[in-house]
Amino acid sequence: MTQLARRMSRIQPSAIREILKVTERPEVLSFAGGLPAPEAFPVAELQRAHADVLAADGAAALQYATTEGYAPLRAWVAARMARRGMRVEPEQVLITAGSQQGIDLVAKVLLDPGDTVVVENPSYLAALQAFQAYEARLAVVSSDEQGMRVDELERLLRKTKPKLVYIVPTFQNPRGTTLSLERRAQLAELSARHGVLLLEDDPYNELRYSGEPLPAIASLEERAPIVHLGTFSKTIAPGLRLGWAIAKDEVVRALILAKQSTDLHTGALAQRAVLRMLQSFDYDAHLRRICALYGERCRAMLEALARTFPSGSQWTHPEGGLFIWARLPEGIDCGELLLEAARENVAFVPGAPFFARNPQLNTLRLNFSNRSPQLIAEGMARLGACAARRLAGSPQRAAGAPPP
Amino acid sequence: MTQLARRMSRIQPSAIREILKVTERPEVLSFAGGLPAPEAFPVAELQRAHADVLAADGAAALQYATTEGYAPLRAWVAARMARRGMRVEPEQVLITAGSQQGIDLVAKVLLDPGDTVVVENPSYLAALQAFQAYEARLAVVSSDEQGMRVDELERLLRKTKPKLVYIVPTFQNPRGTTLSLERRAQLAELSARHGVLLLEDDPYNELRYSGEPLPAIASLEERAPIVHLGTFSKTIAPGLRLGWAIAKDEVVRALILAKQSTDLHTGALAQRAVLRMLQSFDYDAHLRRICALYGERCRAMLEALARTFPSGSQWTHPEGGLFIWARLPEGIDCGELLLEAARENVAFVPGAPFFARNPQLNTLRLNFSNRSPQLIAEGMARLGACAARRLAGSPQRAAGAPPP
Repeated sequence: MTQLARRMSRIQPSAIREILKVTERPEVLSFAGGLPAPEAFPVAELQRAHADVLAADGAAALQYATTEGYAPLRAWVAARMARRGMRVEPEQVLITAGSQQGIDLVAKVLLDPGDTVVVENPSYLAALQAFQAYEARLAVVSSDEQGMRVDELERLLRKTKPKLVYIVPTFQNPRGTTLSLERRAQLAELSARHGVLLLEDDPYNELRYSGEPLPAIASLEERAPIVHLGTFSKTIAPGLRLGWAIAKDEVVRALILAKQSTDLHTGALAQRAVLRMLQSFDYDAHLRRICALYGERCRAMLEALARTFPSGSQWTHPEGGLFIWARLPEGIDCGELLLEAARENVAFVPGAPFFARNPQLNTLRLNFSNRSPQLIAEGMARLGACAARRLAGSPQRAAGAPPP
Repeated sequence: MTQLARRMSRIQPSAIREILKVTERPEVLSFAGGLPAPEAFPVAELQRAHADVLAADGAAALQYATTEGYAPLRAWVAARMARRGMRVEPEQVLITAGSQQGIDLVAKVLLDPGDTVVVENPSYLAALQAFQAYEARLAVVSSDEQGMRVDELERLLRKTKPKLVYIVPTFQNPRGTTLSLERRAQLAELSARHGVLLLEDDPYNELRYSGEPLPAIASLEERAPIVHLGTFSKTIAPGLRLGWAIAKDEVVRALILAKQSTDLHTGALAQRAVLRMLQSFDYDAHLRRICALYGERCRAMLEALARTFPSGSQWTHPEGGLFIWARLPEGIDCGELLLEAARENVAFVPGAPFFARNPQLNTLRLNFSNRSPQLIAEGMARLGACAARRLAGSPQRAAGAPPP
């Protein structure tokens, strides 16, 4: 079964699963996963909503359902997106099993083996895996504090003729940075002019703690072929597996057909329960509570980094989302740092796997949403101490040491 | 976007979606979908189970979860399969979003464009779609009253060197027939000897109304590379999207990795709620109730067919499952029959789309699980009358009529 083995190795992320197993030990202070805070889940409201739906409409909620999703939920998503300036008909909304499925379906519909996908470098790991599962070639553009370097993109479009450009424009995973308004407009215009499909993966948009909201790229240029992905995973609960893909008619029809043979439809009870909850509680107030909670944690981590990380370290200053991206002084391999950190019962994700090209070994991703400010301070203190020790022992600093 | 269009046309089942829209009209007596009876859903038990899980363990049930599935549910499935003679470790069980996802993941892991998949002719429509989405070539073996003609298979294995043989061995969709024990053993032996992966899709196995249970093919030959799929969709509720794939270590690892980039994991709340329910009620008694209900409906349909279908018609006599497969006299096109039947507010699925080769236009699939015996009698009477009218008007019988 060599074919199988070949595919497996392509899909296997570089030992990231093993790394994450460390973080499952209860004594470990983990900043690895992109986990929302469980105390932010509207548990009681979801409990009531599930009970109400099963009582009022159990037969429909438990039966097979349409592939495109529960019509009133599609309408809710379309109306919500209108608030971001997108003109969306409910028929353009496909309800997906989280936005990860949106990524997979776009890849399934669009990619033949050998096709090129442009990604940021670094980018969301599970998107890279999804594209690689369809044997895509990855072409990379770099990023700075304003997100993707769109000025690099046009040359790349001419050179590689990609099928798809993938971007997390707002509070990016892994870097936490946000694409500026000017670059959003440029990107939309490039997508329209080159006719290249832009996959705008926007799971964190509602989690803004400072600065001004920015329009979705999909709202900026009517002629651009853009698929916009959203999700309830970060704002309600990931365990329900509910997201959505929005696309123009021809593309959304293709996505629906692809989903039909993939899993028939998204969980019907979950769709109805979430809509029921959205109709009976103040979602915006809920979002304000989450943003207050996560904003405090984000600031706590930024302060802790400034206190505890070795001099020469840098990190991003996100205005929202779940992640801070840090770069330690040269010479520190964050894979090795993780092994040492795990012994101190603290965990994170090394940055290298997020790079489709030229991994920077001295980078790491830190999640701040899943721990209290006190535990963030404690975790960063331990991690900073580990980094300082490794730095002291690294060949660069320890001039007299033998080469490794 | 020609690539997209090309793929769409490959995935598009022949107008089946349009056909099924007819059946959504509330006044239509539909025997089209493979729908369980909603009165068989354990609504109150699921309501209690969801409430209990959210109360006791809401944070975990709503959080991201492992791709392979909730460990205690995997253990439950492994123990259940042991009762069918399969030796399964919990680590060999992947919890999927219904067994449709199991089909898709096997195709994703195994198939390159142009690879051959052997299917029964006719076979489960959404499996054909899933294989075609990965640009597989389909090779067909015929079926008789004992299921797949395994004697035809060996020659086909030599000739086409397929990557995969797909079969619904028990109460097949669409024909309702069951593979005999002798053929099961032959098939397992062929899979082992040729090293060809056998995908045993077994969603209906627990729905037996007469005859003796048969072992899973996966239990018959240790050396055979078999992926076995099961589901709660027919026995608990399809709207929850819960199924499982069982495979040997290397294959299950590949499936888990493929699922990770497809949708991260199956709904965590649904997994925990179903396990909670299974631990607190008598599942086997529940299955006996469903089998009594569906068995009565199956018999009602068989009796109605004998009363109402035109002479020269034939149909299968399933021992379980959801479907009867009928063949009307030559000259009746069941696609045209459906248009006429829809005017009489009765619906079914024409047989042609289930054939990967040589569609038989005079065949149709009838679902009996979703309507009462009274409505089945009424629906078959209307349908039989439509068929008789078409037969009277068909060129074969109406000797003086001009050719169509």
